[in-house]
Formats: sequence, structure tokens, C-alpha cells
Amino acid sequence: MYRTHTCGELRLSDAGKQVTLAGWVQRIRKMGSLNFVDLRDRYGITQLVTDDNGPREVTDILNQLGREYVLQAKGIVAERQSKNSKIPTGDIEIKLSKLTILNPAVTPPFTIEDQTDGGEDLRAKYRYLDLRRNPLKNALMLRHTMALEARKYLDGNNFMEIETPCLIKSTPEGARDFVVPSRMNPGQFYALPQSPQQFKQLLMVAGYDRYFQIVRCFRDEDLRADRQPEFTQIDCEMSFVEREDVLQMFEGLVKHLFKTVLHKDFTAPFLRMPYDEALAHYGSDKPDMRFEMLIHEITKNVQGKGFSVFDSAKYVGAIAVPGCADYSRKQIDELTEWVKRPQVGAKGLIYIKLNTDGSIKSSVDKFYSPEELKNIAEVVEAKENDLILVMCGDKHKTQVALGTTRLEMGNRLGLRDNSIYKPLWVYDFPLLEWDDETQRFYAMHHPFTAPKPEDMDKYYSDDKYGLAEVKANSYDFVLNGTEVGGGSIRIHDSKVQHRMFEILGFTKEQAEYRFGFLMNAFKFGAPPHGGLAFGFDRFCALFGGQDTIRDYIAFPKNNMGRDVMADAPSYIDDVQMKELYITSTAPKQEEK
Amino acid sequence: MYRTHTCGELRLSDAGKQVTLAGWVQRIRKMGSLNFVDLRDRYGITQLVTDDNGPREVTDILNQLGREYVLQAKGIVAERQSKNSKIPTGDIEIKLSKLTILNPAVTPPFTIEDQTDGGEDLRAKYRYLDLRRNPLKNALMLRHTMALEARKYLDGNNFMEIETPCLIKSTPEGARDFVVPSRMNPGQFYALPQSPQQFKQLLMVAGYDRYFQIVRCFRDEDLRADRQPEFTQIDCEMSFVEREDVLQMFEGLVKHLFKTVLHKDFTAPFLRMPYDEALAHYGSDKPDMRFEMLIHEITKNVQGKGFSVFDSAKYVGAIAVPGCADYSRKQIDELTEWVKRPQVGAKGLIYIKLNTDGSIKSSVDKFYSPEELKNIAEVVEAKENDLILVMCGDKHKTQVALGTTRLEMGNRLGLRDNSIYKPLWVYDFPLLEWDDETQRFYAMHHPFTAPKPEDMDKYYSDDKYGLAEVKANSYDFVLNGTEVGGGSIRIHDSKVQHRMFEILGFTKEQAEYRFGFLMNAFKFGAPPHGGLAFGFDRFCALFGGQDTIRDYIAFPKNNMGRDVMADAPSYIDDVQMKELYITSTAPKQEEK
Repeated sequence: MYRTHTCGELRLSDAGKQVTLAGWVQRIRKMGSLNFVDLRDRYGITQLVTDDNGPREVTDILNQLGREYVLQAKGIVAERQSKNSKIPTGDIEIKLSKLTILNPAVTPPFTIEDQTDGGEDLRAKYRYLDLRRNPLKNALMLRHTMALEARKYLDGNNFMEIETPCLIKSTPEGARDFVVPSRMNPGQFYALPQSPQQFKQLLMVAGYDRYFQIVRCFRDEDLRADRQPEFTQIDCEMSFVEREDVLQMFEGLVKHLFKTVLHKDFTAPFLRMPYDEALAHYGSDKPDMRFEMLIHEITKNVQGKGFSVFDSAKYVGAIAVPGCADYSRKQIDELTEWVKRPQVGAKGLIYIKLNTDGSIKSSVDKFYSPEELKNIAEVVEAKENDLILVMCGDKHKTQVALGTTRLEMGNRLGLRDNSIYKPLWVYDFPLLEWDDETQRFYAMHHPFTAPKPEDMDKYYSDDKYGLAEVKANSYDFVLNGTEVGGGSIRIHDSKVQHRMFEILGFTKEQAEYRFGFLMNAFKFGAPPHGGLAFGFDRFCALFGGQDTIRDYIAFPKNNMGRDVMADAPSYIDDVQMKELYITSTAPKQEEK
Repeated sequence: MYRTHTCGELRLSDAGKQVTLAGWVQRIRKMGSLNFVDLRDRYGITQLVTDDNGPREVTDILNQLGREYVLQAKGIVAERQSKNSKIPTGDIEIKLSKLTILNPAVTPPFTIEDQTDGGEDLRAKYRYLDLRRNPLKNALMLRHTMALEARKYLDGNNFMEIETPCLIKSTPEGARDFVVPSRMNPGQFYALPQSPQQFKQLLMVAGYDRYFQIVRCFRDEDLRADRQPEFTQIDCEMSFVEREDVLQMFEGLVKHLFKTVLHKDFTAPFLRMPYDEALAHYGSDKPDMRFEMLIHEITKNVQGKGFSVFDSAKYVGAIAVPGCADYSRKQIDELTEWVKRPQVGAKGLIYIKLNTDGSIKSSVDKFYSPEELKNIAEVVEAKENDLILVMCGDKHKTQVALGTTRLEMGNRLGLRDNSIYKPLWVYDFPLLEWDDETQRFYAMHHPFTAPKPEDMDKYYSDDKYGLAEVKANSYDFVLNGTEVGGGSIRIHDSKVQHRMFEILGFTKEQAEYRFGFLMNAFKFGAPPHGGLAFGFDRFCALFGGQDTIRDYIAFPKNNMGRDVMADAPSYIDDVQMKELYITSTAPKQEEK
């Protein structure tokens, strides 16, 4: 071993001990005749010291050092003259007797500090240097702890972690698969799993009534910001359960993680909200519960007063933004432009200001009396000094636009504090989504999601509107406005399953071709079952108080799916392609 | 919840309780007026009972049942008349008040019993049914426990589990990569990792001094029996360590697993053996230490007596097979044929029998006096009633053939008991292997393996024979004749690394192209480091006392890399290939 202690370990009580440390040079300083080196490893920083009259070999080596050199340092632990209360080792320093350069280092292209001078691209290219910085180290440490604690909780509840294959069968339904040509089976391809969905359901058929896996999944989608082509799930499934059992079990998991990882005690049950309510009041199926500013429908309150924009709208809704009645004309104009961006999609914005002097000012004063405006303010639960923002149009679209605006105003007002956690279950999602283009229903979750027992009549009816109202026996776990987990009770009854295929417009042959393998397994005694999967990367980022997942993945890819550090993907040679029975149709690669 | 208890939980102390169970029908029996159902779940079997005078609804349902039906059973726990001491629930039964069929089942194609009537192919196709059987359930349970305990031990020793990518850069060195065409980067491919070797070394550069990962790896090789295209490793790496530190740490891991999983205490240090000794005495770099029967060289003892076969041989060696002096002529002939098979590769077999009456009989009596034979017997450490088997030829090949014969005789004599564990470290492997065909050295482990410090002179010499003698700073963990783990101290000094590339015959450009990315990272301060990886599938199988890994993988592939259950790999459609910028050159698929 090159060391007796780590650089985060020594305290005043160790004074007088002969120790050996190893690590990286964080900083070199000279103060009068004293020479200091801050030596860093994963565990912390320890100050090394020698004076100009110290061992000659030590000062000789000191003169050669640069940032990030790898050193071995021997010496005696001593109390510091000027202590540093910011670090746990700040009371001591090591009086050097010997210093050895284990490896020199060229100067890194950016500083290895909590706040670095390196830009994002540079840090991505030298990811192994960026990973030396505390924020990333803490992120990966948090991830390690979360995974371990999740495993401990699930093991303690009789869940078995069972590894499912990565090289699986490609299925045409769903998002795009990554595929892997098979050399031994010419012309055929494996797919990489988008999730272990079918395998975990097979494990339920096989009697493994409590399964989980922290597992890599793959999705070949055009990458939106902060999406990765490979990502990690905490994937879970249980047999002989109803929805309440699943929610209880995984609420327990989340509480365990809060307690063990963040030392936060959640004793009360998590909030629960039906999908319809989430849309009505938050304009989102993943409400951020850290602040109020609820959406209220005011259609009835505003129609019939001669304002044709409202009169012709299917829906009029509003939010009351607290303390913003003093918004200037310029600020309102800016906000109006903002809501009209395609990402928000509103046609316009009406405001009502509840001034502190008791007066009311709105952009529709022409059509509404102060009394009528006050009445609206009451419905919207607005208080003095609030700015009411009103939008109208198609119900769903307007709710979503109001929800997006609500989040933006929450941001502007600093109401979305990342150190506050507001967990929420959203349930009673629609089972089916009608697609006007293809004139058919699609499964909102996946075709194995069970309808709610009380909606069975509608499920078997042939009424399109009735079908659209059928609720799924599904649930999402939402944390601070982010969907972190989702799942459902699955269909285990073959009659219900065949009806689902019928609704989705599959012929028997199509259903057989796409799902026959799983359906066949179900014939041999499938238990009632359901499950859930957490997006682990996102879960970690939220626990770390961050919005972006990239720091919580050791070696992430960029928006083009590239690992810029390793320069992957890359070209492969023709011999290899020939062995795999494929040729490339891409334009010829340029010579470098 | 569909149940109040599992089928493995109830005891006599629960008698009188009203309970609800759920599970699968294992067996249905009628004895007089009594009807019995054995209900099975993951936790055990519980007997349900009703008599013909019981609730009519119950008997009605009983009459519909078949094997593997999924039931919910309500009733009262009662003491059994005739107890079954073989199962933990054997003292009680459930007097049924209600029985519900949760799902019917078609009759499975083989029996769900510890000893099934299903053949291997049938069980592979219906893997989800095979997984219901106890041997597979126990195998996966053991795997779950081993993974969790490995994580606990490593976490307890400050290791961080860090996930490395699955979509990485293809490297031309080493075994064949599985590749994944990139849709967003036309003509380019990702590779699936054969191991996270480069990433874990980067993590050392990044300062994560104790890394591990239980990780899926991929190798597109022609599959020998019991090899899988995807497999799992416990992958580990440490910084600021020497070989001894690595061995201590992972010996600790193995001991922890023995203790927590198998309840076996290994207090003494594991045996250690240099590679040369392993070959000399066991004819293998992974000796099975469960039995003796050591190989002894007898070249000097047999030459110069006029037996030209021995006189012209470079090496003559022998083993003493205990208690087999009474082998018949027929048995000796069979054994001679056996050693001449290409898998063993011996040219022939000489025997010496040490009969119980004190006489000696050999196939070379013509050339050797009884005294001389006794002298050989002494060298081979043979005792009365032993059968000495002698082979000769090229030293290495003969040692290996003797080693293979040693294992075979161990099998025949029942000396390889799978419930006995003999762990062993093998070390001091050669660093380089000379290949006559390409007339160059290859790295025996990989080109980042450090030479032993004391062999540095030879390492820098230009003498081919000197180079061939350089030992690697590497080690294998061997359990009962199987290599379960392997690793090395890595090169962290760029001078040593460049010398390695020189020895392997790479130009600077070639080295740069193949390994430049990692070498570049090393410039920024690489710590001394080393590590090890365990083959997790094999480790589990050995702990389970089995020779085959297939039962320890939930959904394995066959020797053609096929998942016969899901029928993967499979053909994909042209649209998908077009999106990926590839076409297939395989003969057209047949219409099904």
C-alpha cells in the first residue's frame, strides 16, 4: 500500500503520528520560508508543509511540482498554526520527511476546483479530469449510495434482483430499438432492451413474486436536452398485488432513500392526485407541488360579457401570480411574447392586476366591471398585489400552457427550491389515447396495462367516447414536477388482453406476431401482477438538487449520442462488417 | 393484496388463524372423502384441505382444477393429522372456506418438480416454466444473495459502484466486439464492452481510488459449451496499491461470500502458488486443490536405461493414482485410448502398478528393474496399491496432458466433491507469449499489465528468451480447478508502457491509434493502480455446487447465441435498416 491514511482522515488526535499519504497536488504555496502543498484524494485535502531548512531532497522535489502531480508524502502529523475550519483536516498538517513523485502530470486544460474555468465541451472531452472535481465526485457518491440503499430496502422486502438479458428480440411496437447484428445468425439482429418489461412479466409467470433490477436500458430516440441513449432504471414487479400494495411498497422505498441518503424523514403518506385534477389545477400530469399558484377554470365567469375572444373559447383558465401586481407594461409584454412561443403555445395573455391600493387594472377593462373582475379574482383565489394571468382556447392545450406559465413564474419568483422535496403519486391516467391521424386508439402506457375494474363496462362498450374515458390502473411517481417513476397493474386475464388488442385494432394474427410469445406464457398460469420503474439517473439528480442528469452519469453522451471523450461511435472495418453480413449505405467516410 | 401469508410461512403456532394464500397448484389428491391441494409459491408449499361435506362452492372449484392453476385460498390454519417433516409447513394445513381461481393454466409440457421429465430443449423453450422449479429458483436466489453481499462488502471497504457505458468505442485488439449501428452518426458503430477495462482505469486517473461494478459484458466469440455471449463480472480496481493489497482485499471479499452465503468460515489465508509450480505439479494454471495426485517430473530417473521413447523425450512426468493398482488390462487400454484423444493430446501411456503384495508390474518391465521402478514410485510419492501413469514428450504439452488425466482420475475416484471448496491464488504468470506464426510477442493478459518489478532488467533487454521469462504482476483466483477471477497491477509509468508497445511490435502511430485515448489520460497524473474481475456467473455456479452456469442465468442463450424462448435474434425490417444506414448481405430469409 502506498499510504497509511487517506487525505481526508487525519485529525488533531493523530498529532505526532508518522504517516504516509498519496494523492494529487491541488495547490502549492510559499509563505516566507514555508512551503505548502495541498494534497488531494477522493476523501479530502491534507496540507503538507516543509521549510527551506527541511530535508534537501524534499525541497528539491517541491521545486519540480506542478498541479495534479501524483505524490507520495511521508511525515509527522502536527497541529497547524493557522487552522482552516472549512475542511475536516483543517487542524493539522504533515511535516514532510520524504516526498516522492509517483507520476508527473501535464497541466490540465481547466482548473480542478468546485467552480472550474472549463467550458462544457472541454470538460466533456477530458471527462476523467472533470470527474476529479467535488461536484461530480459527490454526484457519483450519491448515486452509489442510492443504488445500495435501494437494494437493501428491496432485499429487506423479499425482492430478488434478477438480471435479464441485454441481447433480446426486436419488437416493432414502441420507440426505436438499438440493434446488434448477429454473426452466428446471418441477417438476424438482436435488440437492446428499452426496458425489461416482457422479461419481468415472464418472471411473474415463473413465480418470482417480487423482482427488481437496477438495469441499463436503451432507446434510439432523437435526443432532447438531458436525454441519454442509455439510461438506468430501478425496475420492479410484484405478484398477487393491487394498486394500493404497489404504492405502499414503493412509497416505502422512496421514504427509505430520503431517510438514508438525505436524512429527511417523511412520516406522512405522500400526496395523491388523479390525472384529471393534476391537469385541471397544474396543467401537467407531473405537478410541481412546491408552490401553489393553482390553475382555475373561469369559463363561466367570463363568458357572455361581449368579449368575443372568451365567448368563442372552449375553456378559459387563470393563475394568480403572488406579489406581481406591479408588473410593468414592458414586463407584461415580455411575458406575452414568452407564452406565445411554440414551446408554450398560448395565443395570447390577458392580465388582471390586484393593486395594493384596492384598485383593479386589467387588459379587458372594457368588457368587465371591477365587480366582475373581483369575482374572477375570488375564483382564482387571488390576493391583493397578485397578478392574474388568463388564457383561453382548447381545454387541454390551454391547461398545459397555463401549467408551463405557472412553472415559469414559479422559477422567476424562486418558488422552486431544489432543497425542498414534494413527492406525489398521480393516478387514474386515461388507458387509451385517440390518434386523429391514424384514426385508432393507442395504449397510453403499454398494451399490458389493466383498465380500472370499475370501468370494465365502458372498456367492453363500442362507444369511442366511452373508451376514451376508461381509466388505467396505473400510477406515476412525481417529485418536484418531474416524473421519476411510473407503472401499472398489468392485465393477467386473457379475455381482457384480447379486448385490448381488439381496441388497438390488431387482428388476431398481428397480436400473435407482436405479443404471442408473452401471451403464450400467460396461458400457463399468470398471477395478478403489477409493477413500476424509476428513472434512476433523474432520481439521483433530483436527490442531488440538480436539474441535469449529466453530472450523475460517469461517462454520459452528448445530444448526438456521442461520447466525445472516447470519440464513439466510430467507423469499423469492412472485414468486421462482412463477418456480420452487413454493409454500410452511409456516404463514404472522409479520410482524416 | 391477494394474500395474508405466503405458502412457506405458516407453522403450528398459527393454528386457528384465518388466512388467505395465493399460489399455483402443485398437486391435487383425494383420500376417501378428503380433498387435498398442494399450493405452491416462491416461499414453499402449503396443504389445502376440504372434505366432501365442505362448502359446495369449494368442492365445485376443486373439481375444475388442474396443475399450475393460480388460486386464492381462504381458510383456517389447522394441525395436520399426518405431518410431513420434510417441509417447514408440514405440521399444518388450511381448512378451506373459499377457493377462487385467479387464472387457469393449460397443462405444462413437463412436470414442475425438482427432477423434471422435461428435456433440455423443451425446458429452454419454456424457460418461464423451468424457472418455477426449485433448483433454478434456488440458483437465482443464491445469485441475488451473492451480488448483494459482494456489494455490502465492497461498500464497507469504501468502494464506489460506478456504472460505465454499454455503448462504447470499438477497439480492434482483443476478442470480437458486438457492434451497434448508430442512426444519428451514419456509417458509424458503437461496440458493446468486453469489459470496462479502459473506463475503470480512467476512473483511477479521475481519483476514484476504489471502484467496483457488477456489470454486463459482451464477447462475440464462437461459443464453447457453457459460454455465453453476454456475461456478468464483478469488476474492481484500486489505486495506490501493490499486488499484496489487491489480494488481501479480494481474499476478504471471497471469505465474506463464503461466510454470508454458504456459512463457511475460511480463517486461514488462501493457498498461493506461482504459475510455474501450478504447471509443474498440476499441469494447469488453475489447479484443482481438492485432491493431491501431484505431477512429478521423472525425466532424469528414467533416461539412459535403453527405453528410446523416454530417452528421446524432453520431459517425462507421472502421477500416482491412489488405489488403482488393480486396474485390468482392459481398463488400462481404455485409459490409453482416452489420453490419446485430441482433447488430452498424449502420445501414449506407460503404467506402473504397485501391487498390494509388494510386487511391481509395469508396461516397461523390459527396461527397468524393480529397484528402478521403486525409485520412480518414490519420486512420484506413490504408495502401495497405487497406479502410476507416465507420459512423455514436449514439457508443457505433457504437463497439460498429465493435468487433464489427473482431473479425469479425480472424477473417476470421486475426489472432486462440489461441496468442498479449495480456493487458491495463482501468480507470477508470464507477461508475454511468443507466437511462432506471427513471430511476435502478445500480452498474455492485456498490454496494460505491469511486469514484476524484479524483472525490469529482462524487460528492457532485447533478448527474446529473457523477455519470455519476464513475469507479470498479475494473479488469478482459482476455485476447485476453475479460474473465477483474474487481474493485475497495471502499468502507470509511460516509459514502461511505451516499452510494452515496442515489445508488442507497435509503431508509435499504431500505439497512438489503438490506445492513444487512454495514454493521453495517463499524462494528467495516473496513480499506481491495479484490479481484478470475477466471472460472476461461474462464481455463482461454483457456490451452488454446479459445473454449468446456465441455471444461474435467468434467461441464457444456447450455443448458437440464440434465446430459444423469445426466438432472438430475428430479422428486422428494411425500413429500420435503412434508418441505420446498413443493408444485409445475408442470403434472403425464408418465408415462414
